[in-house]
Formats: sequence, C-alpha cells, structure tokens
Amino acid sequence: MERERALKLVKEQLTEHRYIHTIGVMETAIILAQRFCGNEKKAELAAIFHDYAKFRPKEEMKEIILTQGFPEDLIEFNAELWHAPAGAYLAKNEAGIDDPEVLDAIRYHTSGRAGMSLLEKIIYLADYIEPGRHFPGVEEVREVAERDLDEALLQAVQNTILFLMKKKQSVYPETFNTYNDLVKNIKEQAKNAEKEK
Amino acid sequence: MERERALKLVKEQLTEHRYIHTIGVMETAIILAQRFCGNEKKAELAAIFHDYAKFRPKEEMKEIILTQGFPEDLIEFNAELWHAPAGAYLAKNEAGIDDPEVLDAIRYHTSGRAGMSLLEKIIYLADYIEPGRHFPGVEEVREVAERDLDEALLQAVQNTILFLMKKKQSVYPETFNTYNDLVKNIKEQAKNAEKEK
Repeated sequence: MERERALKLVKEQLTEHRYIHTIGVMETAIILAQRFCGNEKKAELAAIFHDYAKFRPKEEMKEIILTQGFPEDLIEFNAELWHAPAGAYLAKNEAGIDDPEVLDAIRYHTSGRAGMSLLEKIIYLADYIEPGRHFPGVEEVREVAERDLDEALLQAVQNTILFLMKKKQSVYPETFNTYNDLVKNIKEQAKNAEKEK
Repeated sequence: MERERALKLVKEQLTEHRYIHTIGVMETAIILAQRFCGNEKKAELAAIFHDYAKFRPKEEMKEIILTQGFPEDLIEFNAELWHAPAGAYLAKNEAGIDDPEVLDAIRYHTSGRAGMSLLEKIIYLADYIEPGRHFPGVEEVREVAERDLDEALLQAVQNTILFLMKKKQSVYPETFNTYNDLVKNIKEQAKNAEKEK
C-alpha cells in the first residue's frame, strides 16, 4: 500500500495528536530500518498502522481478542495492551494489509514477545523513541539506538517494566518474557563476539 | 522436630556466616508468624531449613531438580535459585521433614510463586528482612512488614526484580508471576475494604 493511502486510512481513525505521533513513529522506523538493515517499506507500513485501533471502544477490542484467536489472558491485564492485537486484526480486515510480518509488528508493538523479529523490534523501539516522546530515560534509549538495536530495546522494555512497577501495576507476562529473551540474546551475542576475537 | 535438633542438623551444612543468617531468619519468621497469625512452629522449622542446600555442589542440586520432578527450566536460570527446591527435597529425604507446607516454604523462598501460602510469604520475607541483611531498600520493607505482609512482600519482590534488572540478569518467570499475583491480591483487598466502608 502506498504511503499516502495508508496515512489517509489511519488519519480517519486517530486524534490529531496521535496522528502526529504516528508520523514520528513512521519516520523513526524508516531510519531504524536503514540503520539495522530492515525492510524500509514494511517498517513504514507497520508504523503507519501500529495505533490503528487505539481509539476503538474497549468492548470492540475485547470482542476481537476473545473471538479472533488472541490470548484470552490479555483481558485480565491493562486495556492499554488491547489496541495492538486488535489493530493487527483491523489492519488486515478493514485496511486489507496481508503481510504477516507487518501484522505481527503491529500486534506485538506494546507487549513485545520472546523471539521478536527485526521488524517487530524496529516498530516497538520507534514507538518508544519517536521525537514526540518526552519522558525520563528516553534520551538514553535514543543514544543507544544509534548503535545497538537489542540493547536499546532492552532498555526500553526495562523502563516500561519499571514504570509499571513503580505504579504497582501488573505487567503482561509476555513483556517479562521479552526482557528475559533479550537478556539471553545479548549475552549470547557477547559470548560469540568474544569467541571471534 | 525440636529446634535444637533442627539447628544441629543445619549447622553442619552451613558456613558460620550463613548459620548466623539462618538464626536471624528463624527469629524474624517467628515474629512475623505471631504478627500475621501464622503457625509459629512451622515458621521456625521452615526458617531453620530454608538454606539447608545452600552449599551443596551445583551438580548435585541440578541432578535433584532434573530427577525429582522440579521444573526443568530452573536450570536455564540463575543457579542461585536451585538451593530452594533442592533444599526442600533434602530436608525431606535427609532430615525427615515431612510437612508439605514447611517443604513448600523452603522450596519457594527464593523464586516465590503465584498463590503463595501464609507460611511461604513469612519465610520469603523473613529471609529478606532478617536483622543481618543490609542493602538499599531493606529498611523500608522492614517498616512495611510491621503492618502489612503482602505489601512488604510486594516491595521485597519488586526490589529483587529491580536488582536483577539493573545487573541485566534474567528473572525467573515465577518471580514475575509472584509480582503480578501480589499486585492483583492487594488491589482486590483494597476493593473489598472499600466495599465494607
């Protein structure tokens, strides 16, 4: 799908503020795709649609999760998580996006998951560091993202967990799995780099 | 089992430093049992034996975990976790402790778990706040433990997760489950307290 058409479809779904955020995520995702050898067109498309379902009624998102094969335990956790799987479903069924990589990048952009693809990592991170984001720790993650995708992602996921824990909110288990998986990968990469020396 | 005999059995297994820690945990566990209506004798016994396997060879602990029906994924995580299930097994098979509540309190004193019993909570917390413990945050947990077991436990589990995350170490999923479970319980308690007003 062409950028202009995709943006038009998404703009109808979002507030002005969220549309500006989406443009920021798109631009950041393209930069990250260039930097880390990802697919720029897929990054662009996934970024444009990542918040497609953000303003749908909770009941509609809940219905999609419960009837379209998404993990039912999402319902027990923060409703902030719901727009990601619901967005993947709606991007496919309303907007006709059929690339499973793009749909998974939309689906996992809030929770993350163990074994994230390059595209999923790019969208998660772009959503976290796009220029419109201002919160403690984001500048450090931006700096790390200049050179190391996994390390930047780990910091973003850590910050998200810390943020939730400070507010004594529950954390979706897949987010914890994302943390453990990144720690494991980064350790293995360091071990392999050590061997190659 | 009488305290003197239990202490004698455990003393042979531990360093002087760890034995002094064990006495601290025992005294703290008894105080917590009195404070929160737990079983003092069970708290005493579980506390005495909680670190029984602490200095066993890693290979022995690994063998116990893999052959005695404990979750195999423990092996992929920090070896610090292993002495708890191995300790429960050895407390039963070497020292003849057969109270399943006491054995579970030993088993889960490092990882925690969702749905911890009162005794399990007391041992986990006593291990964290006994007077010999000195680390950032412990004093706050001691203060909360004066009045609220779940709240104190939540802070202890949070601190443990933060500590591991700062060192970029993996966190055993059951520890994350403990966190989410406590958050849920505390919210429900607050909701029920609100209703009763």
